[in-house]
Amino acid sequence: MTLTDETTALEREERLTTLGASLRRALGGPYAHERAEARSAFPSDDLLMDPSLDVEQARRWTLERLRHLGEVGFGSAGVPEHAGAVADPLAAVMTFETLAHGDLSVTIKSGVQFGLFGGAVANLGTEWHHNEFLPGITQMTILGGFAMTELGHGSDVASIETEITYDPATDEFDVHSATPGATKAYIGNAAKDGSMAAVFGQLVVDGKRHGVHTILVPIRDEQGRDLPGVTTGDQGHKGGLLGVDNGTIRFDHVRVPRRMLLNKYGGVNEQGVYESSIEDPNRRFFTMLGTLVRGRVCISAAGGIGARRALSIAMRYGLSRRQFPAAGRPEGVLLMDYLVHQRRLLPRVARAYALGFAQNELTQALVKVQGTAEHTELDQRELETRAAGLKAMSTWFANETVQEAREACGGAGYLSENQLTKLRSDIDIFATFEGDNTVLMQLVTKGLLTHYAQAWSALGRSGVVQETTRVVGETVLEKTGAGLALERLAAQVRRTPEETTLVDRAWHALMFEERAQHSLESLARRMRAAKKSGTDGFESFNRLGPHVQFVARAHMEQLILGAFVEAIDCTDDAETRDVLERVCSLYALDSIARDRAWFMEHHRITSGRSKAIGDQIDALCRELRPHALPLVEGMGIPASWLGAAIVNDADAA
Amino acid sequence: MTLTDETTALEREERLTTLGASLRRALGGPYAHERAEARSAFPSDDLLMDPSLDVEQARRWTLERLRHLGEVGFGSAGVPEHAGAVADPLAAVMTFETLAHGDLSVTIKSGVQFGLFGGAVANLGTEWHHNEFLPGITQMTILGGFAMTELGHGSDVASIETEITYDPATDEFDVHSATPGATKAYIGNAAKDGSMAAVFGQLVVDGKRHGVHTILVPIRDEQGRDLPGVTTGDQGHKGGLLGVDNGTIRFDHVRVPRRMLLNKYGGVNEQGVYESSIEDPNRRFFTMLGTLVRGRVCISAAGGIGARRALSIAMRYGLSRRQFPAAGRPEGVLLMDYLVHQRRLLPRVARAYALGFAQNELTQALVKVQGTAEHTELDQRELETRAAGLKAMSTWFANETVQEAREACGGAGYLSENQLTKLRSDIDIFATFEGDNTVLMQLVTKGLLTHYAQAWSALGRSGVVQETTRVVGETVLEKTGAGLALERLAAQVRRTPEETTLVDRAWHALMFEERAQHSLESLARRMRAAKKSGTDGFESFNRLGPHVQFVARAHMEQLILGAFVEAIDCTDDAETRDVLERVCSLYALDSIARDRAWFMEHHRITSGRSKAIGDQIDALCRELRPHALPLVEGMGIPASWLGAAIVNDADAA
Repeated sequence: MTLTDETTALEREERLTTLGASLRRALGGPYAHERAEARSAFPSDDLLMDPSLDVEQARRWTLERLRHLGEVGFGSAGVPEHAGAVADPLAAVMTFETLAHGDLSVTIKSGVQFGLFGGAVANLGTEWHHNEFLPGITQMTILGGFAMTELGHGSDVASIETEITYDPATDEFDVHSATPGATKAYIGNAAKDGSMAAVFGQLVVDGKRHGVHTILVPIRDEQGRDLPGVTTGDQGHKGGLLGVDNGTIRFDHVRVPRRMLLNKYGGVNEQGVYESSIEDPNRRFFTMLGTLVRGRVCISAAGGIGARRALSIAMRYGLSRRQFPAAGRPEGVLLMDYLVHQRRLLPRVARAYALGFAQNELTQALVKVQGTAEHTELDQRELETRAAGLKAMSTWFANETVQEAREACGGAGYLSENQLTKLRSDIDIFATFEGDNTVLMQLVTKGLLTHYAQAWSALGRSGVVQETTRVVGETVLEKTGAGLALERLAAQVRRTPEETTLVDRAWHALMFEERAQHSLESLARRMRAAKKSGTDGFESFNRLGPHVQFVARAHMEQLILGAFVEAIDCTDDAETRDVLERVCSLYALDSIARDRAWFMEHHRITSGRSKAIGDQIDALCRELRPHALPLVEGMGIPASWLGAAIVNDADAA
Repeated sequence: MTLTDETTALEREERLTTLGASLRRALGGPYAHERAEARSAFPSDDLLMDPSLDVEQARRWTLERLRHLGEVGFGSAGVPEHAGAVADPLAAVMTFETLAHGDLSVTIKSGVQFGLFGGAVANLGTEWHHNEFLPGITQMTILGGFAMTELGHGSDVASIETEITYDPATDEFDVHSATPGATKAYIGNAAKDGSMAAVFGQLVVDGKRHGVHTILVPIRDEQGRDLPGVTTGDQGHKGGLLGVDNGTIRFDHVRVPRRMLLNKYGGVNEQGVYESSIEDPNRRFFTMLGTLVRGRVCISAAGGIGARRALSIAMRYGLSRRQFPAAGRPEGVLLMDYLVHQRRLLPRVARAYALGFAQNELTQALVKVQGTAEHTELDQRELETRAAGLKAMSTWFANETVQEAREACGGAGYLSENQLTKLRSDIDIFATFEGDNTVLMQLVTKGLLTHYAQAWSALGRSGVVQETTRVVGETVLEKTGAGLALERLAAQVRRTPEETTLVDRAWHALMFEERAQHSLESLARRMRAAKKSGTDGFESFNRLGPHVQFVARAHMEQLILGAFVEAIDCTDDAETRDVLERVCSLYALDSIARDRAWFMEHHRITSGRSKAIGDQIDALCRELRPHALPLVEGMGIPASWLGAAIVNDADAA
């Protein structure tokens, strides 16, 4: 077994700088070893899809690549292969993350097959389903779709219209799309490859509705023809991810044996009676959806890797490309030496690190909840909130970062041979699938408000209101995982925030806390007022929409900073720590700078101090400029995997 | 002849609302008539490219479409067809703008052939070139490239390495790419279709360098084979614009007759001696590049149309799509009724209008300078500054707006049948070609500083410094075209800005002026200090990079607001005016809100007032919500031209 701090063959080939290798270990965090091993074992010879493939070719290439990866251990990793096998959430996330270093159609198709379809069977099914289907799913003899989304209902899963009606006469279910809006849409593996689907619909037993349940429905025969009653459609060419065969499915009274219902949380017994271990239908719904949290953790991870790939290309190009001669630089200035160029890329590198540390913590939380360790329902709820928020933060960041990287590479960035436009088009939809980002951010705030209301009602009667607010705020922070380290830091400078320097971590911690806490408290106040106001209930809450988005973002930023601070604490090497401290300051100041209007409006920062932040960011960029290459290496994408002609050319030069 | 306020057949077919038609006339401004006519005449039956075409198919389709458009009058419009014919810059811009309603590969290939290649011959060539080549260029029997950019030098045109050396022995030029960096790159028509190129290179006569000049070089024979000494390369698949055959060209001592040099501003006479009407080589260089300003005006226009197409799709979808039932809305809430959704789209609609009005003024300035009317060198320089800035503002806006529209349409936005991802990938490079946006913004500020320095040195010795600064500032504003109307407005409230409402146009004018003027003045001060500081000249100025970008943006925002205010003044209809006033307020407040930190830092807005801006933006969104459809109609893209399935479905529903 390789030790964490041992160099793999791949790393030796990469000829990493000492600092680069050390930064990579730091960013790898608790999973540095797993990641180094995964990189080392990953077959990188056919990593990227030819961007000129058409839809048919792209689908074929993707399926073949996925089968090949399955053969060498990067397929179903983590999904149990039969009943009784233990699911390994860490292996699942690590595998997905590694796949994201290559073509994203392969990554997403893997997610559809193993994470979503396989995950539904593993998590919502029971022993019979596991025995019957998991071997085929993990060996890819059964390809399947995850048929949740409907044309009429994208984000609103509770309102889906597909009906799963129990027929006691035949002991079967009747799966039916009653309306055009009930058509399943955007379903991966539905257009071509899938022979089965995990179909979400409203369960009806004896005329009574029991809410959303999931049932396995065979959709194609061995010749690839739609089975009777099933009509699949091909959604054809998309903005990206051409290798994933997204399609539609309609059901015209399709009959399925009773045992095909995935009945872990609710089903129909042999007497034809509905039974469930969870009485409250609302709670049952969220429990079923909750098992899907891993998908969001995975997408968040992949978004992070995508951003790092783009930044690696743009940074490496910026370190080789010269433009415009200047005083003392007759051969032209390196792009990376322009402050404007540094400001485009370095704060994003800082955020890529920050998100990476937060992703590590999220993965740990997932492993705790879905692994063999004990966990509470609160752990589960926190995980869901955190996964929703980080998925949104990470994928929005990926989108804007790949675009910035493209522009930073000029015309070369637009050539497919340099990978950025392909990455951009593939990663675009990450902002929408596995939960629309705007809706996910609402979920985050909803989670925070629930905690807040609980803490409030418990404490509200006991003391002075102001004191209560403070206590409640801190309880919420603690409960939602922003971390004690950050709280302690903030406490150090609470009384004299303006006496700190702009790179004082305690001051950052305080500002992040104030932003998260004050915005949440004021939202809670406005919510209470809205409830009392009566009139149009929808409109009263609708007005709070932008505030809701802000609260979620402020909370996530605090979580991310907390993860960064803890990661620095775990770093021993002095130079690595020093660089990470600066990277952390750059992330923190960039975040504060974006909201500096808010901080001034709420009298947390004076106008003079606010003005100084820009200069401090410039100074940090200058300080980090000499470490540009190690910072890129630390992000963990081997240069030879980037597949970008401008990077290879740069290395050759 | 159709009158401006008469309805065209197309408009009748569109069944526009009265307000929508009126807004469209207002946005059409001085060219409402030309635009209505162009829309009416434009062949819209084969408007959009099948997004699944491969590179070869896309190129073929694009060339055929362009030939067809040429036959029906949407080809070379505005480019003179022979010596002595009058160029019509307005026709050129209107045609390009109309083409941007359809596939953008066609638009850009048209720009390469007629605007760039044809424009170089028309503007840099003399009578012989006009007679010899313009008929073939306008009739598309000669397809050509505009070979300026080189691999080694993207934005830095002055440093290009291609050499054009006069050989008196044969009275020919020797065109040569001495280094790999001298390879021409990203040249449209170079990979496949072009038989000739307008090649930019360093002119050398009798051992003396005369700076960048342009020469026509045949590159392919009739069978499409490279001519001797010419090596073309195909840059293949790109992030978008697949129909444009971008490629590389290298020259190995290619011999070309002397008369092929485009010699309007400089050439070699029959005695083999260099002669030019412009003595200063620097001025000559900028004069030659200055003739290319039309390209930037056109790209700016097309960027604006692209953004409007995306907004039209997202807005129309938002007006038909429902999600999540709510109190009083059991069938689900219309997306457009969510405040968060309004805030994503309506401020962008407002900015689309604002940019449209600014584009009208830019077009007028172009027509003044390149048309038959008298104009000064100052007019030319102002035009160049304005075109550079608006091109950058418009194309950045287009990119982020198409993306926002994509996300606002959820998964449907990702299907190619809904056009947004195609539009996104095609328009991406608009931020880079015809001048990288970041570099263009530097040009804007450079132009402003030049004016400023001139005014300063003229006035600096005459009075008190503060007063001088004010006068200089106002002179700069006037000279750079921000308009008197805005200045007069601002003056009304200069003494009591905080007593105005947030929708007071005079207050907006004042804030826009203060931002533009103060940032320019402080930059000028920092520039002077940097000059004095000595040490590393590059680093002293490098530090000012972000400030330089801010100044350019602040200036452009002011110009755009000025154009909006003047356009409202020209609008008679009361309801239209009323809606435009709100749209203008939304644009102005959105712009102020983005920089509200700056305004607080510079004590132009109190924190209390800053906080209120968000609520005012919300209120404006609510007020404009009932006019959502007319606002879309006003943007001028017929619904049937959008080619988006979700829009057609919405209309059918």
